[in-house]
Amino acid sequence: MKKFKIIKISVEPQDAVLISRTNNKNIAMQARFRLVKGQKEVPVTQVVKVEGIVQEGEIGLSKSLMKKLVAKEGEEVTLHPQSRVISPSYSLVKQRITQPGRLFTQTEIDQIINDIIIGNASPLESSVFLTSQLFQEWSLTEVEYLTKSLAASGQMIDWGEGNIFDKHSLGGVPGNKVSLLIVPIIAAAGLTIPKTSSRAITSPSGTADTMEAFGCDIEFTIDEIVEIAQRTGGLIAWTGGLNIVPADEKLIREVQFPLGIDPEPMMMASVLSKKVAMGINFLCLDIPCGSATKVETMEGAKRLAHRFSELGQRLGIRIESGITYGSSPVGHTVGPGLEAREALAALIEPLKASDSLIGKSTSLAGILLEMSGKAIQGRGQDFASELLQSGKAYAKFQEILEAQNADPNIRPDDIEIGKCVYEYIAPQNGWVVEINNEVIARAARAAGAPMDKRAGVYFLKKKDSVKRGEVIFRLHAPTDKKLLAAEAELAKEVPIVIEGMLLGRE
Amino acid sequence: MKKFKIIKISVEPQDAVLISRTNNKNIAMQARFRLVKGQKEVPVTQVVKVEGIVQEGEIGLSKSLMKKLVAKEGEEVTLHPQSRVISPSYSLVKQRITQPGRLFTQTEIDQIINDIIIGNASPLESSVFLTSQLFQEWSLTEVEYLTKSLAASGQMIDWGEGNIFDKHSLGGVPGNKVSLLIVPIIAAAGLTIPKTSSRAITSPSGTADTMEAFGCDIEFTIDEIVEIAQRTGGLIAWTGGLNIVPADEKLIREVQFPLGIDPEPMMMASVLSKKVAMGINFLCLDIPCGSATKVETMEGAKRLAHRFSELGQRLGIRIESGITYGSSPVGHTVGPGLEAREALAALIEPLKASDSLIGKSTSLAGILLEMSGKAIQGRGQDFASELLQSGKAYAKFQEILEAQNADPNIRPDDIEIGKCVYEYIAPQNGWVVEINNEVIARAARAAGAPMDKRAGVYFLKKKDSVKRGEVIFRLHAPTDKKLLAAEAELAKEVPIVIEGMLLGRE
Repeated sequence: MKKFKIIKISVEPQDAVLISRTNNKNIAMQARFRLVKGQKEVPVTQVVKVEGIVQEGEIGLSKSLMKKLVAKEGEEVTLHPQSRVISPSYSLVKQRITQPGRLFTQTEIDQIINDIIIGNASPLESSVFLTSQLFQEWSLTEVEYLTKSLAASGQMIDWGEGNIFDKHSLGGVPGNKVSLLIVPIIAAAGLTIPKTSSRAITSPSGTADTMEAFGCDIEFTIDEIVEIAQRTGGLIAWTGGLNIVPADEKLIREVQFPLGIDPEPMMMASVLSKKVAMGINFLCLDIPCGSATKVETMEGAKRLAHRFSELGQRLGIRIESGITYGSSPVGHTVGPGLEAREALAALIEPLKASDSLIGKSTSLAGILLEMSGKAIQGRGQDFASELLQSGKAYAKFQEILEAQNADPNIRPDDIEIGKCVYEYIAPQNGWVVEINNEVIARAARAAGAPMDKRAGVYFLKKKDSVKRGEVIFRLHAPTDKKLLAAEAELAKEVPIVIEGMLLGRE
Repeated sequence: MKKFKIIKISVEPQDAVLISRTNNKNIAMQARFRLVKGQKEVPVTQVVKVEGIVQEGEIGLSKSLMKKLVAKEGEEVTLHPQSRVISPSYSLVKQRITQPGRLFTQTEIDQIINDIIIGNASPLESSVFLTSQLFQEWSLTEVEYLTKSLAASGQMIDWGEGNIFDKHSLGGVPGNKVSLLIVPIIAAAGLTIPKTSSRAITSPSGTADTMEAFGCDIEFTIDEIVEIAQRTGGLIAWTGGLNIVPADEKLIREVQFPLGIDPEPMMMASVLSKKVAMGINFLCLDIPCGSATKVETMEGAKRLAHRFSELGQRLGIRIESGITYGSSPVGHTVGPGLEAREALAALIEPLKASDSLIGKSTSLAGILLEMSGKAIQGRGQDFASELLQSGKAYAKFQEILEAQNADPNIRPDDIEIGKCVYEYIAPQNGWVVEINNEVIARAARAAGAPMDKRAGVYFLKKKDSVKRGEVIFRLHAPTDKKLLAAEAELAKEVPIVIEGMLLGRE
C-alpha cells in the first residue's frame, strides 16, 4: 500500500495507471492492483512504471478513472497491490467443484456475480466458474438463481399492466433475418414486441447490424424503448446500448468470447436474464438444430426446449420453442445489406420470397399468435401469413422504420451492396448436399461484414440440383482488397459440397 | 498491423510497450498483441497509449524486449493486434473436452506446451487446459506425454554412467525439514543425491528458503550442480535458479498459483518432469496424508503411489513412496531460521531431536538405501539411523555447507531468530487434538516468513497433554509490527484445538 498524488494524464486503456520507476522499486509487477480514495475503490488493469510523464510520488490517472474515484488532481490516493487475491466468492466456485453434491444458493450466486461486476473477480477466476459448467450438471434451481442474479445486475423495465412478447433465436445459422418479419407481424396483430438484439460477435450479421443497414437508429434508452413500443407495438433495438445485464456482457467479452465457450447453464441464464430485465412474459424460442448450431440432434433440442420452458415458468415467462432446421442459411442472403434487402422484399412481396424465410418467420410468429390467444391452436401460422400477405406487416414495418428514424419508403434497391463480386461456380453437375456455414460466415466477415454493411453472400442456389458452370453464390465486397481476402477464405476449405464431388486429394 | 520506429524507454513490466495516442485511434485496446521484426516475434503484455515519452510513429520498448527482438533504436517493428486469437493448440484442448473418449497424443501435448512457452497461449486459455483436468480423467499415457513434453521444455542433465537418487515431498505439511537430514544421510552412504527444491509459494518455508538461512548459496548452473554433486555426493539447490522445466514454472505463476488449483495430471507431470530433467533414476516420494495436504485418505495416497510408480517405470525412474502423517508439523519448528536450527541440531545430536523429525527422515532415507542396495530389505531405516548417530551425516552436511559457500562450523544458535515473541498459552487443561496447519502457516507468513528468515513458530507442545497456562508455541517475528500482524492472523481462527475446548460461540 502506498500513497500517491493524482495527476491527470491521457492514457489508454483508461484503467491503466502510470507511476514513476524512481522510488517505486518495492511495488512488484503483479497482475492486480486497486486504487482507494476514501470510500471509493476501483480495480486497475495495469500499473505501468515509466520515466517521464509522472514524477516521483505522483500517479497518472485517466479522466475516466478519476471520475470513478470521485477524485481531483492533486488529491491523494493509495495503491494496493493484491498478491494472489482470490475474490471473496472464488472459494465458493472451488467448493462447488470439489465437494460432491454441493449446489449454489441464491446468495452465493449473487456474491459471484457481484464480484464480477465490481471487478473483484479476475477473468482467470471467472474462467473457472464458466469452464466448470462444461463438466458439472447444474440444477434448474441454480440456473434460476443465476438468471435472477444476472437480471438484477443492471436496469429492468417495468411495463405496468399488459403482456409483452418476444422472439429469441439461439443462433448459429447465417442469414437468420426472421426477426425482421416476425416483429412487424406480431405488432400488426396488436401485440407489443420490443425486440432487443445483439450485434454479430462471430457471425456476418446480427439483427441489430441488419437494422442499421436500413439507416435505422438502434441505440435507445429504456424510456425511449417503452415509448416507441407503446406507440408502434414493435421495434428492434441493440441490447448493448441499454444497461441491461452488464454482468453477462462482461463475461462474454472477458471470458466466453476469447475462449469460445458457451456452457449451457450460462447460456440459458444469459438468454432469459435479458428477457426478465426487459419485462417479457411471452417468449417464442427458436432452437436451430444442425451442424455449427448449439444443438446438433433433435433429442438435444427437445431436452433444451423443456428445460427452457420449466425455467421460464419459474421466472414468470411462458416459453414455447420452435425447433428449426439450422444446417443451411435462411433465405438467400448473408450479411447486413443483403439481408436487409431480402427481408424488405419479403415484407413487400411475400409471395416472391424464399420458402425457408417465409416458412420459418410465419411458423415462429404463429407460435406467438397462438400463445397470445390472437389465433386458435393450429391456426397461428395461417394468421401470420395473412398479416404478411395483406400488407399489414409491411405497413407496420414502415411505422417501425420511421420510429427508428429511417426512411419508411426505402426500397430494397436503395440499400447499397458491395460492387466487387466473386462468383462461385458449380464445378460439376449434381445435388448441393452441404453448405458449410462456417466457411460462408468467415468469407463474409473477411469481405467486411458486419462492420461494412455492403459485404455479404447471395445464394442463387442452395440445396438444389445444379449444373456444372452455374453460379451457386455471389460474394459481395466493398473493395477489391476485401474481395481478395474473402476469396482466400473460400480457398481454404470447401464452402459447398456437391454430391459425388472430390473433397480433397492427398 | 502497423509499423513503428523503436525508441528505448524505461518501463515495467518490461514487456509492456508505449505508443502515442495521436494517430493510433484505430489500434483497439485488446488483450493481446505481438511485435514482429524480421523472423523474430514476441508477445506483448500490454500496449499503453500515452501522450508524452513517445512521439507519433514511435514505439517505446524496454531494453529487455529489444534484446528479445534483436532490435536497435531507430529500427522498424510491426505491431499486430490479435483479435480473438485462439492459440493454434487451444482447439485441441477444446476437442479433448467435448469429444467423449478423445485422448491427447504426444504431438498434441507438445503443441500445447510449446504454445505456452512461446506465449501463444494466453493464461486464460491455459486455465481451460488445467481446469478441465479437475474434471476429466487422464490416462497414464497422457500424463507420460505431458511429463516428457514439460521436461523437454528446458535444460536436461546427462550424468553419463551411474545412479542418481532423489527424494521429493508432495508438500502441505509445515516444518517439513526432512530433506536437510536425508540428503546428507544418503550422500554419507556414498550415493549421489542432487536435490533441487522450490522456495515456499504458500507455505512459511521451502527447503530452498531454509538452506538460505544457513547462509548457503542456492542458485547454481547445471554444470555447477554436476560438479558439486560429483564431489560431495549431495547438495540442496533452488529449482528456480535453473532453466529446467520452464513451462511448468510459467503455468504455476500464471494460472495455478492465482487460481489455487493443482490438478492431478499436471501435479504428477510437474513433479516427474523435473526429475527427468535432472536425470534422476531412483526416487523416494513422500506422500503426506491428512488435512490440508494433497491427499486426505490412505486409499487416495495408495492410489497415487501406484500411479506414480507406474508412471516412473515408463520414464525410467524407479519410484517408491512413503505415505507419512501430514496433519501436524514435522518436528518443533516452522519458518526458515527456526527450521535450519532444528535440522542442524538434529544432525549434531540426533538423540536429542524430536521423534517425528528423526523418524520421518530415517524412514524415507531408509527407502532410498534399500532401493540402492546399500541396505537389505527391512534394514534401511536402521542404516540411516546409524549414519546419523555416527556423525557421518553431520560431517557430510558440513561438506555440503562448505560446497554451497556457507560456514561449515555454523552452530544452531548462530542462526538468527526474530526477537519479538508472542506466546500462545493453553486456555485450559486437556489434550491437544488438533493443530490447524493453515492458521500456523498464515501466522508465520504474516510474521515475515519465508522472505524474512527470522520469522517462524516454535512448538513446545504438539499433540500432547497440556495444563492451563502452559506455553504451547512461541511465534517469532523480526519486528513488533510484524508480530502484531501475525497475532491478528491467530485471532481470526483457532490455531490449536484442546479436547473439550469451546471452538466458537454465536
